[in-house]
Amino acid sequence: MKRRTFLQASATALAAAEKRISGVLAPAITPFRRDLSPDAERFARHARWLLASGCSGLAVFGTNSEANSLSADERMALLEFLGKNGVSAAALMPGTGCCALTDSVRLTSHAVKLGCAGVLMLPPFYYKGVPEEGLFRNYSEVIQRVGDAHLRLYLYHIPPVAQVPISVPLLERLFKAYPETIAGIKDSSGDWRNTEAVLDAFKGTSFDVFVGSEVFLLANMRRGGVGCISATANVNPGAINRLFERWREPEADRMQQDVSATRAVVEKYSMIPALKAITAHFGKDPDWVTVRPPLVELSADQGQSLAAELTSKGFAMPRYQ
Amino acid sequence: MKRRTFLQASATALAAAEKRISGVLAPAITPFRRDLSPDAERFARHARWLLASGCSGLAVFGTNSEANSLSADERMALLEFLGKNGVSAAALMPGTGCCALTDSVRLTSHAVKLGCAGVLMLPPFYYKGVPEEGLFRNYSEVIQRVGDAHLRLYLYHIPPVAQVPISVPLLERLFKAYPETIAGIKDSSGDWRNTEAVLDAFKGTSFDVFVGSEVFLLANMRRGGVGCISATANVNPGAINRLFERWREPEADRMQQDVSATRAVVEKYSMIPALKAITAHFGKDPDWVTVRPPLVELSADQGQSLAAELTSKGFAMPRYQ
Repeated sequence: MKRRTFLQASATALAAAEKRISGVLAPAITPFRRDLSPDAERFARHARWLLASGCSGLAVFGTNSEANSLSADERMALLEFLGKNGVSAAALMPGTGCCALTDSVRLTSHAVKLGCAGVLMLPPFYYKGVPEEGLFRNYSEVIQRVGDAHLRLYLYHIPPVAQVPISVPLLERLFKAYPETIAGIKDSSGDWRNTEAVLDAFKGTSFDVFVGSEVFLLANMRRGGVGCISATANVNPGAINRLFERWREPEADRMQQDVSATRAVVEKYSMIPALKAITAHFGKDPDWVTVRPPLVELSADQGQSLAAELTSKGFAMPRYQ
Repeated sequence: MKRRTFLQASATALAAAEKRISGVLAPAITPFRRDLSPDAERFARHARWLLASGCSGLAVFGTNSEANSLSADERMALLEFLGKNGVSAAALMPGTGCCALTDSVRLTSHAVKLGCAGVLMLPPFYYKGVPEEGLFRNYSEVIQRVGDAHLRLYLYHIPPVAQVPISVPLLERLFKAYPETIAGIKDSSGDWRNTEAVLDAFKGTSFDVFVGSEVFLLANMRRGGVGCISATANVNPGAINRLFERWREPEADRMQQDVSATRAVVEKYSMIPALKAITAHFGKDPDWVTVRPPLVELSADQGQSLAAELTSKGFAMPRYQ
């Protein structure tokens, strides 16, 4: 973004006037019963625990939520259940980006109507190597069809999984076209240079940058970012949130090392089954281990090794139940 | 497949007793109105033309149908419309593989209830690097939940797009578990060595191998395959079908060269927009050019160049309207 335009200045003023979501968000894991149906009660319990334990918000229906293994109807039913069971929509940033334009519009409209803080939108991810113009049209159609001034749209850049990247020029073009709606990004590239390029491009604007892992949280805050949306916030929200709240203090580097070390233990395993195994063990709720195909739960041996290594480092999930 | 088991022999007997679909199938392109809604009338017209022009079946809702840009409800409505408008379900092999297990079950059940010849099932394609066990569970759950002896399931192997491959060991495991249901594969790997490995693994069984491009049609027939399901069958069904019908004759090699040469012209462009541009031009129906995001239609210049090159080679779409 070479120069600030009138629209960008307006969007900045707007963001200053409204309270945007920031801090540590968890892409809340989704519990399944043994018959693989979503367990809404357990989901709401986990959501309330996360919000009571350090998370400022929940990016429900993210990659780590197995959201792409849920139908649109299943997602909408779960979202409505949260609202009726003690989880404020103002803390929610549901994933609403699907392969089909019509599904993305439907989920995004639904989230806005429920009063969600924002939506986190994957690009359509089946077709690969699509032109930037096609991705622009996808987001543009969603914004226009939803047609609601309350929509705050965060782009979800996760090329290792989606295999469809969202480039800085595309972000700039979208922000220029919809400065009040395009609210920021979750950068799950795992590439700090990409995050820096985004931070530089949007410096001084209302565009908010979340990193996709707490490993980059301190670096992101020091460069002007607003927080992280991280898988491991599902199990370690307290420590990650303390780093977020005290990032300006001298002990921040040590706190960063600690949360990164915990994450490194979890990353030895397949992430989603590992998060569920940890929740089952430390939350004393064994039914959490179930995942939907195409994922497979950790073996009993893997789960015990993971729990043992975390325990040896003093890890806990306090007041889980 | 090292030795034939009792189950395989049974499945072979079953396939001999029933008339399985074979030959040239088109992954029928899906027309959209200018507001991006599916145009069911134009879709049925195209389907009837394909079946009258050489296609023995239609793999509707394939990759080239932009099916992954359609919601489950949109697909089901289009499929029902075909049945009521002169397209026999016995000629249809709809794509029903989605990221969400529940969507795959819903679409597959619907297709079987309508009497479709089979379904062509992508693996769940959002999560990458998933274990073979997880993919096995996905297909297994769909088969068990659909619970219908009439289901004929063709696996859709298209790693360049889905980025989730279906390995030969997984095919063998599924065929062994469900010998009457697992009917074959569409191999869109573009890798003839993979097709050969599949043909060798299932030699003498009821498992049918379709190649994903007519470029491999003659080789596939000579090795024991049953046909092709190819993008360009949308526009060149007659010539491809003549090759299929006369593959044992001396002129088959020349016919293969001709259909491959036509395909090579189309492949200079982005495939789906190119197929629609060709249909718009040679079918004299300009509204066909519209694609859904994230795809982008060919530019007018590209469309004219493509049409000019095909015309110079004597290409036509006879009796299109």
